[in-house]
Amino acid sequence: MSKRSGSLLVGQSGGPTAVINQSLVGIVEAARGRAEVRRVIGARRGIQGLLEGDLVDLSAEDPAHLERVASTPCAALRSVRKKPSEAECGRALERLAELDVRWFCYIGGNDTSETAHLLAEAADRAGYELGLIHVPKTIDNDLEVTDHCPGYGSAARFVAQAVMGDNLDNRSLGGVKIDVIMGRHAGWLTAASLLAKRFEDDGPHLVYAPEVEVDPDTFERQVVEVYQQYGRCVVAVSEGIRAPAGRTWYESDDVDQHGNMTLSGSGALGDVLAVHVKRALARIGVEKERVRADTFGYLQRAFVGCTSEVDALEAREVGRRAVGYALDGGPDGTVVIERRPGPGYAVDYRLAPLESVAGHTRLLPEAYLLGPGRIDPSFCDWLRPLVGALPDVARLHDLPLGS
Amino acid sequence: MSKRSGSLLVGQSGGPTAVINQSLVGIVEAARGRAEVRRVIGARRGIQGLLEGDLVDLSAEDPAHLERVASTPCAALRSVRKKPSEAECGRALERLAELDVRWFCYIGGNDTSETAHLLAEAADRAGYELGLIHVPKTIDNDLEVTDHCPGYGSAARFVAQAVMGDNLDNRSLGGVKIDVIMGRHAGWLTAASLLAKRFEDDGPHLVYAPEVEVDPDTFERQVVEVYQQYGRCVVAVSEGIRAPAGRTWYESDDVDQHGNMTLSGSGALGDVLAVHVKRALARIGVEKERVRADTFGYLQRAFVGCTSEVDALEAREVGRRAVGYALDGGPDGTVVIERRPGPGYAVDYRLAPLESVAGHTRLLPEAYLLGPGRIDPSFCDWLRPLVGALPDVARLHDLPLGS
Repeated sequence: MSKRSGSLLVGQSGGPTAVINQSLVGIVEAARGRAEVRRVIGARRGIQGLLEGDLVDLSAEDPAHLERVASTPCAALRSVRKKPSEAECGRALERLAELDVRWFCYIGGNDTSETAHLLAEAADRAGYELGLIHVPKTIDNDLEVTDHCPGYGSAARFVAQAVMGDNLDNRSLGGVKIDVIMGRHAGWLTAASLLAKRFEDDGPHLVYAPEVEVDPDTFERQVVEVYQQYGRCVVAVSEGIRAPAGRTWYESDDVDQHGNMTLSGSGALGDVLAVHVKRALARIGVEKERVRADTFGYLQRAFVGCTSEVDALEAREVGRRAVGYALDGGPDGTVVIERRPGPGYAVDYRLAPLESVAGHTRLLPEAYLLGPGRIDPSFCDWLRPLVGALPDVARLHDLPLGS
Repeated sequence: MSKRSGSLLVGQSGGPTAVINQSLVGIVEAARGRAEVRRVIGARRGIQGLLEGDLVDLSAEDPAHLERVASTPCAALRSVRKKPSEAECGRALERLAELDVRWFCYIGGNDTSETAHLLAEAADRAGYELGLIHVPKTIDNDLEVTDHCPGYGSAARFVAQAVMGDNLDNRSLGGVKIDVIMGRHAGWLTAASLLAKRFEDDGPHLVYAPEVEVDPDTFERQVVEVYQQYGRCVVAVSEGIRAPAGRTWYESDDVDQHGNMTLSGSGALGDVLAVHVKRALARIGVEKERVRADTFGYLQRAFVGCTSEVDALEAREVGRRAVGYALDGGPDGTVVIERRPGPGYAVDYRLAPLESVAGHTRLLPEAYLLGPGRIDPSFCDWLRPLVGALPDVARLHDLPLGS
């Protein structure tokens, strides 16, 4: 396989991240450095663009301009959410053959690795020589095998800076503030809010990941406890917060109001939680307190100017490595990041089988889950290198007036 | 008056901003440089702290530490929303006399200038010598007289970076995205979203300020028009969007659902607008398109790491000047910023009467208002110097595939 030559195709799929174009540019620059690659083709909207012939030539893009594209958030090739049917896989293969594409690097998350897997199987069945590498990205960090996923560090940085600000805001004016954070099944991003804590009484005071069921009564009690202790409370809540069997966060009215309960891109969950908090405060006789909910929404993955440097470098490198894995004749697979043991932060890259990622969701390790609302602070030791140094914030010393 | 000596009191009031502590530190450092000022006292939670004796000594804070506080968003002295009664003004004066406070610099917005005005009148009536200077801050930029207000530039920067990201996200995956932006009465912050535009087809495609009434039918028609042109649409909407007399944005059900319709700190308005868009798309046969709404909420005023340098410098200088105005025996007043005419950006500071600010709301000038959904792009020329250079973003050239 290593002697073949042809075109290399690249596409982007799924929800964008702040560094998804770093991987794209990593692929383009590595592919340009290889004589076997006659042309680097971009499929706009991933598999959709391949099927429709919506393709662009990436070989001729100017390197300095590509550098600017690399540091721009969100999919420069546009993105798509599409799982191809068997018939579409067949048509995709025909297109690849017409274009003499011998390598396909598909940047995306869990669903994208599944599409890559389907295509790889179809190519095998058809006897078409195709090197297929999945280039991981997700702000949710829920891919198996890898230590962490490109895109996550920058989103975690956004969440940390946002909750730092929210904690300061809440300290200024008091009350209860609820922040709804992305991650429907896994609490990696919600737990990143813990980086916002500087002082013992800083928020987030409670952090609800979807891995731990929480009863609405427990939620209300925990918020009231913090409020009674500090006169304020900052709550970080995953959009996937789960109630135990038989309980629900949404009364039927709420579900009807908000239609299909889209979790991000809607303020519905935050509003429901705020109603719970107001009710709980009313029970202890607090009637007019400020209770607010913000849903961080799409800013978490798209905000311009809040990128983790380590995340950007790793996303770039994952793209570069993908080309090496594809061209050097090894098996298909997904690029994973391994953290070296020991002090300091260093990583290695390797290829893992597509099946090890496709269709799986990696949850927060149990060791970090201390029960409803509680994440072990040691999670921050794991996370900090991925996010980088956060902006400095300071308090007054509140020196007492002398005489 | 210029010969007197005594203590200088400072407080913070109203909603926080990213640079409100720059003004605080500007006051402290200028006051320390003046021999007449025997002590700089901070009232925690503004007038509330004065009334309750919740006071701290700012004279003894270390300058290097104060520099760190200056660059920290949100009120380091904590804040309050409180209009004192006449009796409370009387008690506040007693406290000031006990502490030998001869100058009070009160940092805040419109309501705060009103409180300053009430206190100044009470001091006059009581014959108590008190120099009272209002130090303006507001992310809404709705104070009269001043060219612009400290706090606004940084919030505008956040909105610009957020909508830049949202435009890229929307370009990646298509559909309609609604961003709800703070500013209940004035569209200054919503209009700042226009800075996000780089290319002709970039969002925000529609910008709804509260100054221009918009009929729900018109809103739906405008969104559909943009969607049909670009296959996507980014809409920036003020939380104070207004319907003409007899029409409303909320059907009775919506109002019931969300109680008192808090505009920020709730996703209610965004969700209502999303329902309008879905309905409008359904009418043209588009059923399953992505329609999402994010409410930027409190991040606009509190986010850590998104401060405008010019805004920070001006907020600091406004604080410094306030001390000069207070101590040099002139009248009470509010510090205003005047932009020098001509090319380049330069400002002067002067004092304006408290009455000229208190109780007024400055709206976007009519010259910028081109009708529903439309703000004149020349607004960006006025705004750009306040926000500073934004992060670079770039697109691929989308070069066609050769043969």
